[in-house]
Amino acid sequence: MNKLFIIKIGGNVIDNSDALRSFLGDFATVDGRKILVHGGGKIATRIGEQLGIESKYVDGRRITDDQTIDLVTMVYGGLVNKKIVAQLQALKCNALGICGADGNLVPAEKRPVKEIDWGWVGDVKSNQLPSDRWQVLLDNGFVPVLAPLTHDSNAHIMNTNADTMASAIAVALSTAYDVRLIYCFEKKGVLESVEDDNSVIRTINKESYAQLKAEQKLFAGILPKLDNAFAAIDAGVKEVLIGHADDLLQNTTPSTTGTLISA
Amino acid sequence: MNKLFIIKIGGNVIDNSDALRSFLGDFATVDGRKILVHGGGKIATRIGEQLGIESKYVDGRRITDDQTIDLVTMVYGGLVNKKIVAQLQALKCNALGICGADGNLVPAEKRPVKEIDWGWVGDVKSNQLPSDRWQVLLDNGFVPVLAPLTHDSNAHIMNTNADTMASAIAVALSTAYDVRLIYCFEKKGVLESVEDDNSVIRTINKESYAQLKAEQKLFAGILPKLDNAFAAIDAGVKEVLIGHADDLLQNTTPSTTGTLISA
Repeated sequence: MNKLFIIKIGGNVIDNSDALRSFLGDFATVDGRKILVHGGGKIATRIGEQLGIESKYVDGRRITDDQTIDLVTMVYGGLVNKKIVAQLQALKCNALGICGADGNLVPAEKRPVKEIDWGWVGDVKSNQLPSDRWQVLLDNGFVPVLAPLTHDSNAHIMNTNADTMASAIAVALSTAYDVRLIYCFEKKGVLESVEDDNSVIRTINKESYAQLKAEQKLFAGILPKLDNAFAAIDAGVKEVLIGHADDLLQNTTPSTTGTLISA
Repeated sequence: MNKLFIIKIGGNVIDNSDALRSFLGDFATVDGRKILVHGGGKIATRIGEQLGIESKYVDGRRITDDQTIDLVTMVYGGLVNKKIVAQLQALKCNALGICGADGNLVPAEKRPVKEIDWGWVGDVKSNQLPSDRWQVLLDNGFVPVLAPLTHDSNAHIMNTNADTMASAIAVALSTAYDVRLIYCFEKKGVLESVEDDNSVIRTINKESYAQLKAEQKLFAGILPKLDNAFAAIDAGVKEVLIGHADDLLQNTTPSTTGTLISA
């Protein structure tokens, strides 16, 4: 099977133009089929403030009202996405900037209202991704660059978690390619001690994950990422790698950098 | 050869949500391969005012400075483009929202500075469009929805004329498909008398165009559209139709509505 790299970057890379340039330079050199999934970054909040759109959060997560979905559609789907595309095209990497709504490549549904109305937030329908359409793009030399937006099949755009999109794509394409899913974040990997940047845990499997959780050793912010990673592994993705953008792409031997997630 | 419809809509449709919904309903029903090219509309100016970005014009044409290119990248490439995609997807039309930078589908170069520095404005390199990449998308069921942006091969996004993009795509694909290029605008067609909305000229060929220009009968604003149309015809496009969005798609027999441009 052909290799496919699915690489997700978040705000820490997007918000820093030097870090982004450096990352994209590395990304452009990755051989073969690849997909870049990007988050939003703080720029949406900054532009929202200029437009008088107040950011509302519950438990640190944004509520996406009518104004906010227009804001993130502009910023994630337009500004961030197309700037990445222009940079990659300048590096002769054939980036195609899209979002999950385009080609219905990441089907989703509006999150049901329970205690909290999250507004225009989409949950990925993980078992409905059209792997044939993805293959058309990948097998013809396009490098999809994906913004974290989907649609609700009722003419609305929705804000959608980029980590989840990346893992859903990885799972859907794992029957067609030898998929390596890479989450880039601000740390060198999953840390044994949050205070010590060099305490990277080299490998985590299901058993050690259960133990780490039981001991409450892990930083809470990493748990959704790890849950996404194990969901992907359970569903056929070969490797998930978590770590800092600087390290992961330059050195693609997973044993030497970041945290490798395996069954 | 298979038919390909390339349909361009401008601000008069985009700025009016009812007109846009009606147009997209018609567009979704057009059988077979199709591309939608959209302009920007007044919404960029409105959001620009909220952000304190002053619109600068020379001879009615926008100067695209650093702030303005970010603005139109957000609004055209994000907000307008993705809202159209979500509406078309709700109608089961497999829209893929992109711009000319994506996949380098519309190569362009920065307009040289002469008397006027237009800023981040791209001129289409008409003879360099990758028709093979377009065919991959069209022949696999994607319906490209194109925002009027390109890139300069040096990591910058550029504002680009949507009429010109539509005609360059039409020309590039005229060897692979039987192309009908359709310009939707606010009038029912090219008018013999600007005051009379019903004075539509049914057909214009090169000879009659030369005569109409000599007699200075035509509204100046229509001349660039007609020049684009004749450039397309000269380069192999079969038909160019100019008229109102309401009429053109519902009735695809060109003799009964709008203005048909022929050699």
